[in-house]
Amino acid sequence: MVKLQGFQTLTNVDKALKDWLGAWSTKKPQQVALPLVDVCGRILAEDVIAMDDLPCFDRSAMDGYAVRFQDSIDASQSSPVKLEVIETGEVAVGQAKQVWTGSPLPKGADAVIMLEDTNREGNILEIYGPLTPCINIIRHGEDVKKGQLIAKEGTRLNPYNVGLAAALGYSTLRVYQKPVIAILATGNEVVAVGTQVGEHQVFDSNKIILSAMCQELGAETINFGIVKDNIEEISEKISQALKVADALITTGGTSVGGLDLVPDAVNRIGKPGIIAHGLALRPAMPTGVAVLNDKPVMILSGNPVASIIGFEVFGRPAICRLLGLNKTEQHLTLKAKLARRVSSVLGRKTYVRVLVKLEASELIVEPVSVKGPSAISTMTQSNGYVVIHENCEGLKEGEIVLVQMFGNIEVDA
Amino acid sequence: MVKLQGFQTLTNVDKALKDWLGAWSTKKPQQVALPLVDVCGRILAEDVIAMDDLPCFDRSAMDGYAVRFQDSIDASQSSPVKLEVIETGEVAVGQAKQVWTGSPLPKGADAVIMLEDTNREGNILEIYGPLTPCINIIRHGEDVKKGQLIAKEGTRLNPYNVGLAAALGYSTLRVYQKPVIAILATGNEVVAVGTQVGEHQVFDSNKIILSAMCQELGAETINFGIVKDNIEEISEKISQALKVADALITTGGTSVGGLDLVPDAVNRIGKPGIIAHGLALRPAMPTGVAVLNDKPVMILSGNPVASIIGFEVFGRPAICRLLGLNKTEQHLTLKAKLARRVSSVLGRKTYVRVLVKLEASELIVEPVSVKGPSAISTMTQSNGYVVIHENCEGLKEGEIVLVQMFGNIEVDA
Repeated sequence: MVKLQGFQTLTNVDKALKDWLGAWSTKKPQQVALPLVDVCGRILAEDVIAMDDLPCFDRSAMDGYAVRFQDSIDASQSSPVKLEVIETGEVAVGQAKQVWTGSPLPKGADAVIMLEDTNREGNILEIYGPLTPCINIIRHGEDVKKGQLIAKEGTRLNPYNVGLAAALGYSTLRVYQKPVIAILATGNEVVAVGTQVGEHQVFDSNKIILSAMCQELGAETINFGIVKDNIEEISEKISQALKVADALITTGGTSVGGLDLVPDAVNRIGKPGIIAHGLALRPAMPTGVAVLNDKPVMILSGNPVASIIGFEVFGRPAICRLLGLNKTEQHLTLKAKLARRVSSVLGRKTYVRVLVKLEASELIVEPVSVKGPSAISTMTQSNGYVVIHENCEGLKEGEIVLVQMFGNIEVDA
Repeated sequence: MVKLQGFQTLTNVDKALKDWLGAWSTKKPQQVALPLVDVCGRILAEDVIAMDDLPCFDRSAMDGYAVRFQDSIDASQSSPVKLEVIETGEVAVGQAKQVWTGSPLPKGADAVIMLEDTNREGNILEIYGPLTPCINIIRHGEDVKKGQLIAKEGTRLNPYNVGLAAALGYSTLRVYQKPVIAILATGNEVVAVGTQVGEHQVFDSNKIILSAMCQELGAETINFGIVKDNIEEISEKISQALKVADALITTGGTSVGGLDLVPDAVNRIGKPGIIAHGLALRPAMPTGVAVLNDKPVMILSGNPVASIIGFEVFGRPAICRLLGLNKTEQHLTLKAKLARRVSSVLGRKTYVRVLVKLEASELIVEPVSVKGPSAISTMTQSNGYVVIHENCEGLKEGEIVLVQMFGNIEVDA
């Protein structure tokens, strides 16, 4: 049996991603109209346009009295202006009408004076200074103008744009159906979580992690189980998965070892098959990407951290596209100071796991001590990635770096 | 009818929060054991301890051959060491055994040489340089040591600590039950989303926003509807809500106007009732906090932005405690440069809505043009808050400020 002596060449990560994303069709998912209470976090399938001004009438911004500002021009502390408080009708010259925060502004009025700046005896109101026009009034259309774009197709809904749609009278919004991602683990040594582990066996923790990562992005997942290192069985499972899911993630079996059969299994099924396999990426070099039935297939490492990084690099943009997002949603990126030097290998894009801390209101980036790509604890001890470009050979202590945050920063409270 | 002339005094925000959190019992929620696929994002109700080393046996980190490092000491390019490849049993002096990434290390071996650094003819393996002990081996316990704390009670589970628990053989984890938050809108002018709006009426958008914010934190919500500005009806609804929910949020009716009846309605129900009402907070001055039946009640403004800020200041810490978290989970905080000066009023804690942008790898903070506390669009146009302390009178252009991020930063991709 002839063995490949490692990967012959490693593909540049950006090139692999571009080629892969170009090898399957971009089509927007099916849509569904949902009530507003169910749309937060979903991807908008329509442009949301203001059907009217918001507010659609002038409102008082304060508890107080609606008046005509010109009546107040001569008012002063020593010589207050006296106005007649009316209960109904329009506010005429010399009149005032009580309003509460949010009340519609009575006709005739063009200013609101705050309750605490007035004195009232019976139906006589005293005011002690001049008002400017429109003071304490929320103007018709101040928040949003009719016809204004509120939220754009292909963006993710949050509490605030959903709230704005509600204020404008929307009761449902059209969102995209969630894509379904099948996840298949491979490996003779892998056993399902919740079962009994034998000697030299390991639990299928990758599936737990990758499912959770897919779900965090807003996709649904199907557990396609665990398959032994057998090319026929692997092919069979992959074919089944692609019948029911929008995309497939496999874990394990993707190095160049004799039992690393997933890329061969993929190529056996159809065209174009493997787009790239063996990447200039650390960790996660044995990652592969493929397309079958116009659906993306991500062939991730069996090593947990390598599978996580492979997912970040390829799974995230693919799933964002399947969700209907107009662009890839990255982790929130911040800038902070590197506490120690970090080494990397020239020609490899490197994902360094780091812990960002807030120390004396300074953001400090601690690289998490490097263990192999199987050490999940390096993920639980970190909250971000520093990505080192292929052209860089490490980063210096004290350098200001961009950090992609996947977790929160501990703040003493 | 005598009216209060505005709030007599405004309470300091930190004092109000401390007094209020001290006025109801801290007790951890009920627990439930759930399978690992369902626990991500939930709050852990137990300490997770490593029951064994991870990995629990020495494993190969590479595809290659397991050997004894001492056999390799004299190897060189010109004079390779030749080893006998064995198929089964222990690796003795002068022997090698093929291994794949993740394979258990055969007995007798103490190093792994990568496939690509060897040459094999039949069962003779040539190696061309000396190996160091333990090279390319994932050591027993390298990831986690038996007895190590993996995740702490009262913290939120993420894909990585759940994955680590899976790798260690956990199949379920005990998490806290979700708290239930009742949300009640008040106001004669407020109508439910999805119904017909009359002249001078507004939709109950606050409930949509606050429900989504509660759910983002991991709480469940009950829509307690909309009640008119009638003190008996308000009291009745509040009493009902506190029978079924762990906390109550009301919106509207909390200024000092004649129709602002919620604080009175609360005090009518029982003790201690209102803890603070009228806060040195901008926006959201009319916010109130109360305790009834040992449950927290948040009396938020009817103005959308004021209700959102009131929720951030009081709802967030209260709900974090009800979730079982050991401390309040804040938004991710970053540092960035203020693009323009921002004014604030001395003595008021001020929440400035800002848009953080990444420009030429510099993080820039643009204050979102200030509109009244009813303008929801200021939330949809921003992605963070800059909080100005009571002792500060505004912030200068170019100042480096801390930003609490509630949204992502747009990155051109």
